[in-house]
Amino acid sequence: MTESGQAIGIFDSGVGGLTVAAAISALLPNEDIIYLGDTARLPYGSKSKETIIRYAEHAASFLLKKQIKALVIACNTATAAALDFLREMALVPVIGVIEPGALAAAATGKKVIGVIGTNATIKSRAYETAIRRLVPDAQIISAACPLLVPLAEENFAAHPATRLILETYLAPFISAKVETLVLGCTHYPLLRTAVQEVVGQNVILVDSAATAASYLHDILQEKELLSAKESAGKLTFFATDTNERFSQIAKNFFGEHFTSLTQVDL
Amino acid sequence: MTESGQAIGIFDSGVGGLTVAAAISALLPNEDIIYLGDTARLPYGSKSKETIIRYAEHAASFLLKKQIKALVIACNTATAAALDFLREMALVPVIGVIEPGALAAAATGKKVIGVIGTNATIKSRAYETAIRRLVPDAQIISAACPLLVPLAEENFAAHPATRLILETYLAPFISAKVETLVLGCTHYPLLRTAVQEVVGQNVILVDSAATAASYLHDILQEKELLSAKESAGKLTFFATDTNERFSQIAKNFFGEHFTSLTQVDL
Repeated sequence: MTESGQAIGIFDSGVGGLTVAAAISALLPNEDIIYLGDTARLPYGSKSKETIIRYAEHAASFLLKKQIKALVIACNTATAAALDFLREMALVPVIGVIEPGALAAAATGKKVIGVIGTNATIKSRAYETAIRRLVPDAQIISAACPLLVPLAEENFAAHPATRLILETYLAPFISAKVETLVLGCTHYPLLRTAVQEVVGQNVILVDSAATAASYLHDILQEKELLSAKESAGKLTFFATDTNERFSQIAKNFFGEHFTSLTQVDL
Repeated sequence: MTESGQAIGIFDSGVGGLTVAAAISALLPNEDIIYLGDTARLPYGSKSKETIIRYAEHAASFLLKKQIKALVIACNTATAAALDFLREMALVPVIGVIEPGALAAAATGKKVIGVIGTNATIKSRAYETAIRRLVPDAQIISAACPLLVPLAEENFAAHPATRLILETYLAPFISAKVETLVLGCTHYPLLRTAVQEVVGQNVILVDSAATAASYLHDILQEKELLSAKESAGKLTFFATDTNERFSQIAKNFFGEHFTSLTQVDL
């Protein structure tokens, strides 16, 4: 039986999901969190739906064996491809990041909404479906931005080339006068400043992190699975490949709560 | 027993190795070639040596089961990490691309030699060792350029951002007044024009493709394994993930000789 003292499991292809893990840890500081980054096979976003489902299944199986009480897919690509599959497979609540991202977009009250994401996420049209359900008269435009994950992973957020690449990717959104832009990939908040500069200060940028955390809170509360602990939760990190940059970014997000990264083979 | 009628096996993480396969096909047009791109797990260059060896072992096993007469590692990262391992594992000749790249650099007769490659290739210092053996008094400088593979895979060769990123990566080579620059990744020839513009027309750019092909020719000749066929060789392509761009680039290189791409699971 699932117990409130069990950990929350979170996975992503790499460091992007740390933006979601940080929001969850901030909102639910007493929860134990087990994070898995599938760094040996990243990126997911350029790969086929079948391959992404297979990778997501491996990642989820690893976390489910650790007796988690809820599973968070902290990756838009994996959510778009594998959310239904993982909900059938898991006996615990499974939370993706696309529904929370769509909720955050709807909450801005704007009607002209842009979505950027990986090839796989955009091709799935999962955001369009989710936003249309909440804002039936929305005008939605979307585009894949495949170079943004490598730029974020390589720490090129402040490099002038990133701005040029964003100008290419975001030109159709500027022409369409988008009012709200969804950062539909958990890596993109790492490039938020550059994106805001290119689209202009009037465009509202939304991402899934904070909304996913409050979505998770509500589900755990409803199922009486919120931790009763009074001490700080324990954070445990796994990755499928050793990666110094992963540790660096995790340290930026979690400070002293990030103690070590363990390599695992799925 | 190995026979001259058997195919040559070639693998890379993705499309980069097609530059080597094209050179081999041009020099040895009567040879059958089986090409494998491990697109489900690319890129290799940002991953650890242990992970790269494991992936290279899977790729080599797949090709060796097809009764190839020689194995070409058409990837600098996999050559740097796994050449020794694969030579012990395989009963057929195994050719990497680093020794041919070093031979091409030495053949320019220059003493100030630069090397660019992936994180894993540069960290291995495999090019420095190979060049130093051929040109003991060479002054060698090297740097990792991790964004060049994604830029090549995404067809951003002619985008102004690629030039800006190259200016950042190549500044130390320009300061050091390199005379020869080794494109130490089989993807980089796809960005050759931009690299040449940034370093200037006086710098000689070398890559492994043509030298690897003539290296392979010499080994097959020595072992009496050159095909005796008079008709054109058959080209067969496999990838671990479906990928439209792979087919596009393969068509550019091989025209009508590229007929189909088959997806396989390693």
